[in-house]
Amino acid sequence: MLKAAIAAALLVTGVPAFAAPPAPAKSMAQILDASPSEDWRTIDPENTLYLQLPGGRVIIELAPAFAPRHVANIRRLVRQGYFDGLPVVRVQDDYVVQWADPEGKRSVGAAQRTLEAEFERGFDRALPFTALPDPDTYAPRVGFTDGFPAARDPATGQTWLTHCYGMVGAGRDNGADTGGGTELYAVIGHAPRQLDRNVTLVGRVVSGIDLLSSLPRGHGDLGFYQKPAERIPVIAVKIGADVPAAERIDLKALRTDTPTFAALLQNRRFRRDDWYKAPAGRIDVCNVPLPVRQRHSR
Amino acid sequence: MLKAAIAAALLVTGVPAFAAPPAPAKSMAQILDASPSEDWRTIDPENTLYLQLPGGRVIIELAPAFAPRHVANIRRLVRQGYFDGLPVVRVQDDYVVQWADPEGKRSVGAAQRTLEAEFERGFDRALPFTALPDPDTYAPRVGFTDGFPAARDPATGQTWLTHCYGMVGAGRDNGADTGGGTELYAVIGHAPRQLDRNVTLVGRVVSGIDLLSSLPRGHGDLGFYQKPAERIPVIAVKIGADVPAAERIDLKALRTDTPTFAALLQNRRFRRDDWYKAPAGRIDVCNVPLPVRQRHSR
Repeated sequence: MLKAAIAAALLVTGVPAFAAPPAPAKSMAQILDASPSEDWRTIDPENTLYLQLPGGRVIIELAPAFAPRHVANIRRLVRQGYFDGLPVVRVQDDYVVQWADPEGKRSVGAAQRTLEAEFERGFDRALPFTALPDPDTYAPRVGFTDGFPAARDPATGQTWLTHCYGMVGAGRDNGADTGGGTELYAVIGHAPRQLDRNVTLVGRVVSGIDLLSSLPRGHGDLGFYQKPAERIPVIAVKIGADVPAAERIDLKALRTDTPTFAALLQNRRFRRDDWYKAPAGRIDVCNVPLPVRQRHSR
Repeated sequence: MLKAAIAAALLVTGVPAFAAPPAPAKSMAQILDASPSEDWRTIDPENTLYLQLPGGRVIIELAPAFAPRHVANIRRLVRQGYFDGLPVVRVQDDYVVQWADPEGKRSVGAAQRTLEAEFERGFDRALPFTALPDPDTYAPRVGFTDGFPAARDPATGQTWLTHCYGMVGAGRDNGADTGGGTELYAVIGHAPRQLDRNVTLVGRVVSGIDLLSSLPRGHGDLGFYQKPAERIPVIAVKIGADVPAAERIDLKALRTDTPTFAALLQNRRFRRDDWYKAPAGRIDVCNVPLPVRQRHSR
């Protein structure tokens, strides 16, 4: 018989304190099953990118609250067909997958090739933020804004998205303002938080990250594929709102400003099931699950 | 022309302060190239596992200082041929790859099927530890012991290995003492630090982690492959010392108690090259590179 092994990690239950013996506790699945429908938000199809890869579909939720110029530019590029057929050119282990125009010759049409950077932005009370009390190595404060992992610095009044697994950013050259969204990358390894505030993050993979993370690694410098034949074609990229209804996916994300999300956080900090012996009591902003439910629209 | 994009991330240089303008700084490659040979230790072939996969070879360095019983038991299992032909049964995205006996029928012979857990151990001055000043979410203190990422709690006098990318552990059932090394897993995602002190870590992948991390994900619960045909065979597992000299790899790891390693840490905290605009100033214990040089013995 196969040992449950660390497999049990995702079947665990939890209570929000080191009480002993633990009170009957809900599992993460039970917490989500019991959540009211108003704790879930519909992801706006206008804010999604559908990437068709040979192995299946990847869906990205864009983050216009943090990168409005980049998101608008990416929408324009997508609607012109800019990305269709451009390949994955780079897969660097424990780091990123990147898709781009290898020759840099494709026209950006009515879009822009480069934009002013959107590394961080100001915040006020209008911008929601569910702060984590847990200490973070890189930022004074971390938490979640509209379902995205984010950080804040009260001293500067600035906030920014954090480079967690599955986050998507806009590659750039040495100049801060040389990105624009014409080439994009997704994080497929331990969170490279040193990139925070150095690249414009534009969104997060909400479905199909495994299609990117399991691609063959490139063996050139920085994980670039050495031969054009190794590249993986991204067959087509569309804005979700432009996808025919029959092919569209209805995506609902757990709101990060709800009691359900708070319960989920406690569940993951204090795992009190039969498997865990020493609950961590804390959680890293990049270890927090961000549940998304999906079903075909029809 | 392809943008340098975040590719530049690994070509960076650094100086150990926010001095402006930056002094001429060495790149990580330059720091390593300038390192004296005594800053490198030879990885003991008796402490290595060679896994032959269809795609190539993975090499693991075992950690007898932290898990002496498990390491001795794994050596015994390997030398009896226990692991030869056993497959990868599970690949869970952003989590672990696990190889094991799917039927649990294989004899462990003179080895043991289960062992007392080795989740943590005491420390004294004899156990080297290069502490990081950087804050950590999960542990009071983090750093490196003999090239392995580790944590310490001065209040309890205990130390343990940390679940960073590439770390290898011994799967277990619900009981703490139900592991033993008959099934092993490697971390292939964001560090699941909640597993620290809950599973016995036995080593670290020092070569070929990409052969594990790029395997197709399993679509069963917890990433188990649903059909036996999906499993990836681990053709053979050997102790490095038992591999014929012509096939053995001479592995040298940068010592983590050297000025070279200290310089590398500063280089990674304060990236001051042309690409980085906002050096993090801090580093996560699981974001520290642990360089290994390899060449064929002959």
